[in-house]
Amino acid sequence: MDTYELLTRNTDEVVVEDEVRELAQDPDGKRVYVGYEPSGVLHLGHLLTANKLIDLQEAGMEVVVLLADVHAYLNDKGTFEEIRETAERMRAQFLAYGLDEERTEFVYGSDYQLEEDYTLDVHELELSTTLNRAQRAMAEIQSGETAKVSHVVYPLMQALDIEYLDLDLAIGGMDQRKVHMLMREELPDIGYEARPVLHTPIVADLTTGDGKMSSSEGVTISMEDSAEELEEKVNSAFCPPTRDPEGDLENPVLELFEYHVFPRFEEVVVERPDEYGGDLTYESYEMLATDLESGELHPADAKGALASYLDELIAPGRDVLSEMRA
Amino acid sequence: MDTYELLTRNTDEVVVEDEVRELAQDPDGKRVYVGYEPSGVLHLGHLLTANKLIDLQEAGMEVVVLLADVHAYLNDKGTFEEIRETAERMRAQFLAYGLDEERTEFVYGSDYQLEEDYTLDVHELELSTTLNRAQRAMAEIQSGETAKVSHVVYPLMQALDIEYLDLDLAIGGMDQRKVHMLMREELPDIGYEARPVLHTPIVADLTTGDGKMSSSEGVTISMEDSAEELEEKVNSAFCPPTRDPEGDLENPVLELFEYHVFPRFEEVVVERPDEYGGDLTYESYEMLATDLESGELHPADAKGALASYLDELIAPGRDVLSEMRA
Repeated sequence: MDTYELLTRNTDEVVVEDEVRELAQDPDGKRVYVGYEPSGVLHLGHLLTANKLIDLQEAGMEVVVLLADVHAYLNDKGTFEEIRETAERMRAQFLAYGLDEERTEFVYGSDYQLEEDYTLDVHELELSTTLNRAQRAMAEIQSGETAKVSHVVYPLMQALDIEYLDLDLAIGGMDQRKVHMLMREELPDIGYEARPVLHTPIVADLTTGDGKMSSSEGVTISMEDSAEELEEKVNSAFCPPTRDPEGDLENPVLELFEYHVFPRFEEVVVERPDEYGGDLTYESYEMLATDLESGELHPADAKGALASYLDELIAPGRDVLSEMRA
Repeated sequence: MDTYELLTRNTDEVVVEDEVRELAQDPDGKRVYVGYEPSGVLHLGHLLTANKLIDLQEAGMEVVVLLADVHAYLNDKGTFEEIRETAERMRAQFLAYGLDEERTEFVYGSDYQLEEDYTLDVHELELSTTLNRAQRAMAEIQSGETAKVSHVVYPLMQALDIEYLDLDLAIGGMDQRKVHMLMREELPDIGYEARPVLHTPIVADLTTGDGKMSSSEGVTISMEDSAEELEEKVNSAFCPPTRDPEGDLENPVLELFEYHVFPRFEEVVVERPDEYGGDLTYESYEMLATDLESGELHPADAKGALASYLDELIAPGRDVLSEMRA
């Protein structure tokens, strides 16, 4: 696979192609980041990004995971000490999942976000960014009554993080794209360089294929699911025999194969008794999706294989989590 | 004069009376503040506030003058070092004008506004204050296109200053009232006490009596005016023989007597040749205003006296300024 393809596969958006192509010329030692508010248990959303980070490490890049303890503190997630304990569990799960420890730096927001230079730069950006522009970057559509001042300040801090962490590339879900566009427009106004960004896809709700899989609503898959729980969740997933269901619906089983399983395994074997045709072996997502559409691969068999591969991916992190809690 | 009257005379608004009455019971050692972006030359706006501060010192209070160097820095007023030089000139002029050096503390914003605790508290307030509420506190009506993110953050910093400077009372012009109302509503949400506030009046434009006297437009009187300049400016002032001119107009000559001269002098003598009735002596503003309205005091004579008293008030600061520049 060529380097640009490795960097950009399974992304929904590349901002902008020229800059990422230039990065692909010499990715060795270049720094890419993702930021999270510390969470005790990783879910598929984290792991989808982690798959992308693993691709980038394979290309030679260094990964920076920002553990946003300042924001967690402000959101009443505990004392800084408690939040650091949560963040340490997060770190252990990422490494167990497959991030290369030698090429992964975990940084706390409090390491630099409360220092004078950073604070002055936040104020500089507040002064150079119109309120209208910042409102357009707010993470979700906030009505006038519920939007807080923090909703227009946090995007500016995210922009500055990209400068202060000395990055060459940023990664985020599609829900981060407005913040990253603000970063690209506003950083140059205070003398810093805009950085390219890759946006990872949003996986559809597992049970309905409608909207997005969320850690707060509906069924999610997390690092603490047992093999049995995984099997149960995947078995009740929405999986019509097509990659393009009616209306706005998606096929979440295919999405999980595409974004979670194939990037991590050379081949996928769907086990079947000989009487039903015997095992099927796929070397690419395309082949599996084609067979599901043609009827060659039954949704129930696809689900069985998916649950088993997800379990294999999750098992090391699940073990670490249970050791840390023991 | 009773203490409550001394604390509140020549103010346009007391927020709220009960709290200031309680302060008046035991004002000794209580702390009051005013904040300014450092300016090299004081003008009448500064001095009107200073008159109020002198009243409060007379009642036993300690004055804190916040020299907002961080904001000046962000507004491109120079390096921190250059801004401190400007601020030192400001300090010298305030002391020359009559603030009691023993009871006046000059504090730089950079002494605490870039520290971790303060920065965290700014973020707490950003999180607890709705964008709508903060927009209502913006210093001036900003259109959607010109308002910056800083316009919703600065009022929160002003609120926190009142906590961090450990104050019992805040002072500001009427243009600060929205910010102070925000302070009273929002500080308790993050566990701090709201403080009472006194708002000083706005003096009308000197030449027209319309709108407000401004340091950026129209004629202003400043600490560097010579006796001749003062005389010239006051002589061309709007001064109809009434304290209540038509429409929205004000009589700025009477306002200057009321807010600038009478608070600082036991009596005011208007010198007149014997052939025009000889000197007039006033022990109160009311007496002088009554005579102007009745025709007993001619506007031209009132202006002559005003220029002379303003010169007496300004002379010490003017001298200090010229020494510092020599």
